[in-house]
Amino acid sequence: MIGGEVRLDDLPLREDLRGRSPYGAPQLDVPVRLNTNENPYPPPRELADDVTTAAAEIAKGLHRYPDRDAVALRTDLAAYLTTSTGVRVELGNVWAANGSNEILQQLLQAFGGPGRTAIGFEPSYSMHPIIAAGTRTEWLPAPRRDDFSLDTRAAAEIVADRQPDVVFVTSPNNPTGQSVPLDDVREILRAAQGIVVVDEAYAEFSSRQSALCLLEEFPSTLVVSRTMSKAFAFAGGRLGYLAAAPAIVDALQLVRLPYHLSSLTQAAARAALAHADQTLASVATLAKERDRVVDALSGMGFRVVPSDANFVLFGHFTDAHAAWQSYVDNGVLIRDVGIAHHLRVTVGTPEENDAFLAASKELAP
Amino acid sequence: MIGGEVRLDDLPLREDLRGRSPYGAPQLDVPVRLNTNENPYPPPRELADDVTTAAAEIAKGLHRYPDRDAVALRTDLAAYLTTSTGVRVELGNVWAANGSNEILQQLLQAFGGPGRTAIGFEPSYSMHPIIAAGTRTEWLPAPRRDDFSLDTRAAAEIVADRQPDVVFVTSPNNPTGQSVPLDDVREILRAAQGIVVVDEAYAEFSSRQSALCLLEEFPSTLVVSRTMSKAFAFAGGRLGYLAAAPAIVDALQLVRLPYHLSSLTQAAARAALAHADQTLASVATLAKERDRVVDALSGMGFRVVPSDANFVLFGHFTDAHAAWQSYVDNGVLIRDVGIAHHLRVTVGTPEENDAFLAASKELAP
Repeated sequence: MIGGEVRLDDLPLREDLRGRSPYGAPQLDVPVRLNTNENPYPPPRELADDVTTAAAEIAKGLHRYPDRDAVALRTDLAAYLTTSTGVRVELGNVWAANGSNEILQQLLQAFGGPGRTAIGFEPSYSMHPIIAAGTRTEWLPAPRRDDFSLDTRAAAEIVADRQPDVVFVTSPNNPTGQSVPLDDVREILRAAQGIVVVDEAYAEFSSRQSALCLLEEFPSTLVVSRTMSKAFAFAGGRLGYLAAAPAIVDALQLVRLPYHLSSLTQAAARAALAHADQTLASVATLAKERDRVVDALSGMGFRVVPSDANFVLFGHFTDAHAAWQSYVDNGVLIRDVGIAHHLRVTVGTPEENDAFLAASKELAP
Repeated sequence: MIGGEVRLDDLPLREDLRGRSPYGAPQLDVPVRLNTNENPYPPPRELADDVTTAAAEIAKGLHRYPDRDAVALRTDLAAYLTTSTGVRVELGNVWAANGSNEILQQLLQAFGGPGRTAIGFEPSYSMHPIIAAGTRTEWLPAPRRDDFSLDTRAAAEIVADRQPDVVFVTSPNNPTGQSVPLDDVREILRAAQGIVVVDEAYAEFSSRQSALCLLEEFPSTLVVSRTMSKAFAFAGGRLGYLAAAPAIVDALQLVRLPYHLSSLTQAAARAALAHADQTLASVATLAKERDRVVDALSGMGFRVVPSDANFVLFGHFTDAHAAWQSYVDNGVLIRDVGIAHHLRVTVGTPEENDAFLAASKELAP
């Protein structure tokens, strides 16, 4: 291959990237894949049809740039948030990007960066520190309790003490599953002078109130980020969004790449939103299945972390990686998220969960 | 609106963003829009049909994440580059992202950043310094000649002297139109120790050889970036790409957001590539129209910068902004790119160009 003789180490790469590996869950060709917190239910037929119809219309005009401000899509997202949370969100409160990763990257470009800091309570979503590094924001890891719950008082104290420019609160937390109650989020917001990003990627799986309820109280610091990848069964469509004060949206427009959201993405996401009721029906099914998986694992003697999301963190394994391999050998791909003695399983269809539980029996403590 | 009372200045925004405005061409609802260098010809019917068919297939599986490495799409892009440039490019040489802006951002994240510098020869693509700022790369503007051509010897000298970490060479240059001959690109590559990005967004409109021909000679420093927005009539699909040594592609995988390219984007771009011959037929038509526009403007007494692209920079206007407004008043939207006494017009359909030329007569020197 042309240039095949050049090694990564020969390149004038940034020093802090040397020796790193790309982020990404290992993908293996096994029958049951419960490793990336996808919704196991395909989009309903009507939704797929509407995406196709939208694509047919968009395809005729692909020679033109998309709506740079994604006004129609953001209006639909605002309506969805208003309906689902009861908080009156408008177009100007909403911003959208290619997955919530791009949302978080834009937030750190605007409010983080060199000489600035971001804090997160670990273990949490592993992309937070990676995106911080990508924007050269100094990452301050803060601990959770040994049971992975958030010690709110300690969290508020460290925020008050360190005054980070950006605080990440993940609720429900990935990869552990617990939600952060509204009063606890409020306590952290009170302590913070910087931006507080409540990452609600899994909010639809939880019966807790959204942090959006606090937006009126903390308009200049609160950002609630969301994704259509999980509950909406739209991981392939790549659509993340946020709700915040309109000035925050203005700030992101200073760092977003122009025309970042393709016409197809905008139209397909709108088609998916039009079928929210139908898609979100799977959420109730998955929540029930999650509870079944939790009960079954507990019954086998596993220690299971309480989950408000579509995944479950469980242990204790003497050697988590060996246990992970044993699942793979049984045709079930779950995730070793790097927490000692624990593995994370995504809630799948009843059949997938049965296969997972059957494989679990062999490994029960 | 919730949070409507918060002002941008109240937010803890990065200092260097304060007072800035978002990038973006003004969009006005006028009959003839020749302002953003789009291809005026809609995708052929067969291409639109194939995009629709692909979307129908993809829609069924939108609940799953896309191929993180976009292998099929990159394979097709490699085949297209091999056919169109004669340089044998393979999957491992190619990387793709949401528009060439994201490609350039990833390059600056990997090879630029705080404490590093990037150079460009201005006037050129205005996103280069903006993306440099977004990644906190120090921007070193270097001049072109008064006639907007590149003084290669001076360019190579300043590169040798300043040793920037990233060099941008835009060929054909936007917004001026001239290509940089291969020997001149080689001279700059010889002077550079950092990465040299040859931005070939408009390459298909030029009969010059691609800088890809130099990849074997400069594998550890040369990157050729491309887009499907222009010649491919795929601006709404948002697909940029690059060809380089595989180690450069490895480097970008360290900074790319995982799953950055949606399943729909990957499939739609592949459908468009399958119709490359048909789409690119419009390029010949546009090149002829460009030459007609150049001749007509010259005949009216305008000073026209030679163009190898699908746009033309011309003047001299005493007051370029007033002239721009006069075009708008005549129903023709062109671009004031901020070069004193000049305006840029995108080459449109013959009818659009006629409308533009008719409006030009009124403003002729």
